[in-house]
Amino acid sequence: MENLNKLSPVELRHLIRTGKFSGQTSGLAAGFTQANLVILPRSLAYDFLLFAQRNPKPCPILEVSDAGSRNLRQFAQDVDLANDFPKYRIYRDGKLTEEVTSVEKYWRDDLVSFIIGCSFSFEAELIAAGIEVRQITLGLNVPMYNTNIELTPAGKFRGTMVVSMRPIPTEQVVKAVKVTAAMPKVHGAPIQIGQPAKIGIKDLAHPDYGDAVPIKPGEVPVFWPCGVTPQNVIMQVKPPFVITHSPGHMLITDIKNTSLKYD
Amino acid sequence: MENLNKLSPVELRHLIRTGKFSGQTSGLAAGFTQANLVILPRSLAYDFLLFAQRNPKPCPILEVSDAGSRNLRQFAQDVDLANDFPKYRIYRDGKLTEEVTSVEKYWRDDLVSFIIGCSFSFEAELIAAGIEVRQITLGLNVPMYNTNIELTPAGKFRGTMVVSMRPIPTEQVVKAVKVTAAMPKVHGAPIQIGQPAKIGIKDLAHPDYGDAVPIKPGEVPVFWPCGVTPQNVIMQVKPPFVITHSPGHMLITDIKNTSLKYD
Repeated sequence: MENLNKLSPVELRHLIRTGKFSGQTSGLAAGFTQANLVILPRSLAYDFLLFAQRNPKPCPILEVSDAGSRNLRQFAQDVDLANDFPKYRIYRDGKLTEEVTSVEKYWRDDLVSFIIGCSFSFEAELIAAGIEVRQITLGLNVPMYNTNIELTPAGKFRGTMVVSMRPIPTEQVVKAVKVTAAMPKVHGAPIQIGQPAKIGIKDLAHPDYGDAVPIKPGEVPVFWPCGVTPQNVIMQVKPPFVITHSPGHMLITDIKNTSLKYD
Repeated sequence: MENLNKLSPVELRHLIRTGKFSGQTSGLAAGFTQANLVILPRSLAYDFLLFAQRNPKPCPILEVSDAGSRNLRQFAQDVDLANDFPKYRIYRDGKLTEEVTSVEKYWRDDLVSFIIGCSFSFEAELIAAGIEVRQITLGLNVPMYNTNIELTPAGKFRGTMVVSMRPIPTEQVVKAVKVTAAMPKVHGAPIQIGQPAKIGIKDLAHPDYGDAVPIKPGEVPVFWPCGVTPQNVIMQVKPPFVITHSPGHMLITDIKNTSLKYD
């Protein structure tokens, strides 16, 4: 497995599909977009798609499958949505009941797969622009916080935004805004700079999800809309059946991060 | 009515709502976004929203109402979708059956309104950037053409892209691309520059919709995805009941064109 980093997206998907790799995907197929997954029954798909349309910053939809289909058209060829994520979570009535490496045996004709942008893509661009991404330097998960930012409801779905935080040196904040604003399909520009209390965050040292990271003198905390938001909102609805990816176990797509900037 | 040009969006909507104005909206409330309308029954709304998600360039959704609601949240306050377009068209089984100034008496609890970006917004920006928009200079409708560009299907909806054409001096083409690329919510960048045959257009002198305009020496025809596309695609499906705006009779929203560039 030492050559995992050299494999192409389709080679990695084949390895994952055949059960030969089930780990986290961070750092694999560098430069290619990785994506979050939400699979819902068709009966909930309109409300969720409308919710995403109304809240594109925390919920940037990259692609939606046809009901029952395990294929994609745009973000990956030669893909099997039931096997190509290294790990899946199955929720029943809002409770996590199974964590599995294939959801083939759970597949139904009415399931719709939502492929959702993740901040992994813009982090690579920040680093390329010379901006340190603290939790990557430290080998930690990004700190994420619940906020008081109300989302626009759609049907059953409503709630508040979850944000991720990265400490940025004051003199690099403008560059960080510019880099991420150019990538609206993976959350885009920050939603708040330097004033956590304004969005209801009381204690940066105790994130609601992920790990705390230190903020050094001369740095400000910068907050971006986070892809945990849609999963969070869905779980509050407690649908009878939902499949998601396991955190960090993403779909590796055929699309380059850079192409997301120009599409 | 001589002061129509000085009225705010909400003042114009009141005038339209109370039947005091039912004309074209071109040039009114300069700087504010105007929008196309498609109203479909809820049973077709998921397929149409998915079609728009898959084809955002010709079908840029600005906002979708809740089923049965005549209000908007984001693009206009104090709005009545059943009365605030100066003129509506009603189609039954794909045939135009009525043209009316109010659709109040046709309203149903299952109707969903799709508010769709129109190129009016980017034309104002082109002019502001010093680029002539030929059909406006000549007081004509923009020339529009059917193409061979296949759209990504979604459920019942499938078809080819309709494009609008504006002749641009060679030395201004790059600027025209930059100006419109910054406004993806109103069709964004051109889809073709200078080679109509590549997208299946045989005769620029005979557009499929709108009026022909002259192309002067030193100019190239530039083609943008066009908002006629979604209406065209819907009509091919011949749904039992659809309401649209009448061409040129748009919703005047509260949102500035410039804010669409930064959202």
